[in-house]
Amino acid sequence: MKSISQTRLGILGGGQLGRMLIQETINYNISVSILDPDADAPCKNICDYFEVGSLGDYETVYNFGKNLDLITIEIEKVNIEALEELEKEGVLVYPQPRIIRLIQDKGLQKQFFKENDIPSSPFQIFNTKEQLIEANLHFPYIQKLRKDGYDGKGVKKIENETDLENAFEQPSLVENLIDFEKEIAVIVARNPNGEIKTFPMVEMDFNPDANLVEFLISPSTYSFEIQQNAEEIAKHIAESLNFVGVLAVEMFLTKDHQILVNELAPRPHNSGHQTIEGNFTSQFGQHIKAIFNLPLGNTDAIANAVMINILGEKGYEGVAEYKGLEEILKKEGVYIHLYGKKYTKPFRKMGHITIIDEDRQQAIEKAKFVKETFKVKA
Amino acid sequence: MKSISQTRLGILGGGQLGRMLIQETINYNISVSILDPDADAPCKNICDYFEVGSLGDYETVYNFGKNLDLITIEIEKVNIEALEELEKEGVLVYPQPRIIRLIQDKGLQKQFFKENDIPSSPFQIFNTKEQLIEANLHFPYIQKLRKDGYDGKGVKKIENETDLENAFEQPSLVENLIDFEKEIAVIVARNPNGEIKTFPMVEMDFNPDANLVEFLISPSTYSFEIQQNAEEIAKHIAESLNFVGVLAVEMFLTKDHQILVNELAPRPHNSGHQTIEGNFTSQFGQHIKAIFNLPLGNTDAIANAVMINILGEKGYEGVAEYKGLEEILKKEGVYIHLYGKKYTKPFRKMGHITIIDEDRQQAIEKAKFVKETFKVKA
Repeated sequence: MKSISQTRLGILGGGQLGRMLIQETINYNISVSILDPDADAPCKNICDYFEVGSLGDYETVYNFGKNLDLITIEIEKVNIEALEELEKEGVLVYPQPRIIRLIQDKGLQKQFFKENDIPSSPFQIFNTKEQLIEANLHFPYIQKLRKDGYDGKGVKKIENETDLENAFEQPSLVENLIDFEKEIAVIVARNPNGEIKTFPMVEMDFNPDANLVEFLISPSTYSFEIQQNAEEIAKHIAESLNFVGVLAVEMFLTKDHQILVNELAPRPHNSGHQTIEGNFTSQFGQHIKAIFNLPLGNTDAIANAVMINILGEKGYEGVAEYKGLEEILKKEGVYIHLYGKKYTKPFRKMGHITIIDEDRQQAIEKAKFVKETFKVKA
Repeated sequence: MKSISQTRLGILGGGQLGRMLIQETINYNISVSILDPDADAPCKNICDYFEVGSLGDYETVYNFGKNLDLITIEIEKVNIEALEELEKEGVLVYPQPRIIRLIQDKGLQKQFFKENDIPSSPFQIFNTKEQLIEANLHFPYIQKLRKDGYDGKGVKKIENETDLENAFEQPSLVENLIDFEKEIAVIVARNPNGEIKTFPMVEMDFNPDANLVEFLISPSTYSFEIQQNAEEIAKHIAESLNFVGVLAVEMFLTKDHQILVNELAPRPHNSGHQTIEGNFTSQFGQHIKAIFNLPLGNTDAIANAVMINILGEKGYEGVAEYKGLEEILKKEGVYIHLYGKKYTKPFRKMGHITIIDEDRQQAIEKAKFVKETFKVKA
């Protein structure tokens, strides 16, 4: 492998995750090329080369990658065949295309969990809505599209016949509703040498309207045993896959304190944004270290951190205007990350804010103030 | 003033300081334009607009700035008349042109210290070498060019008649040699509202060959009184100037523990690079907050930090190659910042490395290892 500052890195996707990766690649002189379908993507002005094109198109992805040394992703909906061909021709692709293919499909993910003794809820797979209706399952249950779901899209709760009539037509999987106590996540990193490190387990609260993480607390205050169990599960997944890069493992903690894996994201993830200020290494820095086969960084927490997503305010659509910045920055330990998106719409992820405090409850109180005070309007 | 993400920021200079400022501006969606004479400047690919041009030329600086809302600098050798004209026309310029003018000239700096009761060594000003020779001063002493010195250039030790024959011809100032125990520095930030904050005092060791900071330790372990005194001096300077932005105050701590101000830099400075990982707010983030009149961030140290400059290895000139990255990153708490410079030459500043450790002595030991292990060759 070439030395890091001579390696031409390509990132599929030029959104906020790419943007925060670039803030790290700058530290290593890495030349970064970005492919994104949006000519106004958040990365367009901060990379060495920016190309507008479809991430799903074989030719586009193949031609983008053929002169690069290393390719990574910031979104998993990409053309796998092109990545496999590039890999055959000697381009490094991390995470590996076979893993992206598996994770793209929630049905394959569930089969992988089953085959590798990774705790997850029971499931059934259906190719069509007709098959689902014929199965005559007991209500209520959750139907998830096998492919292309994200940020809560592609998930339906089926509670009655009317819901069933409106169920997804496409291939899907069905799970029982999990009566969980808390949603938790662990981000794990692994490099090609096999070195593996987890970030401390975090706890998440979701916005029920938007079905997006809205309130994330790091580190968790659950028992050492629960945290260790969650971290061991994440390591086991990364090792079973021979994964390279950072992998987000979203899990449910049930009311009887069992852990069930919900789903995986093969890239930096919303549940790790607080690591930028809250930990000695950020998930973005760790991803760069992992894909360049450098020793992984210390993942310890610096302080209690609460992360909130900045979502476009309901009822506003157009050129984004940010209200309340000065007020929130008066509080100590408040860090803002805007994502460079010109236009807002309801629930669009426009940025995030991390609050650091030695005292966990103080951090939570500040986060509530920030959430009430900082708004994206138009 | 416009909201931060609608403000067009211009930076005079596109070197490493501009690069580290941009890593912060990304967090606020700030549109950044850069002017630099070098078409390959470190910022060229990571800003919204990059212009090649002379920082000393009136027309170039004026035309660069006339459509911007706010201008700052990462180097003080810039055309002041153009900045003054832009300021008259309503463009915000921080730090203010009158302050850059004062700091550009070490003679004016010394007069300012004298007039404002800021402790500094006695000095005399000479317009020509002839005047200096006629003064018949006692050897040894230090001669400094009033203008354009940087990184130890523009400073001569005059010990005998031969040195005197080789003294600078240009306007200069002369000071006694100071028998100091330690070089120290405080970075102070002030915003237009008058809010003011200092970073903890740091201690510096210089490379005698290159006359560059090579080893910086934060925070200092000198007594509370000394640290408070240094911070009060820095605040007094910033307040006397009504300074806006971050200001680096380099000082000598004499053997009898008096503090003498050496010189000022009206911008982020080498003596504050360790704040990126070592403090809750970095000097770059603080500069952005200050010039946008946002509340200043918490400057407390997170841990002991040692910063070393990465200098081009003696005897190597050409396309830079970095040796030893993997070895140094195996140590916990080692953070690298390469500056995106393609070519190395002896003592060129190619980057810096910060080492964080709970234990100060451990941090120093790791820094020594890093210095021996990581090399820039060609």
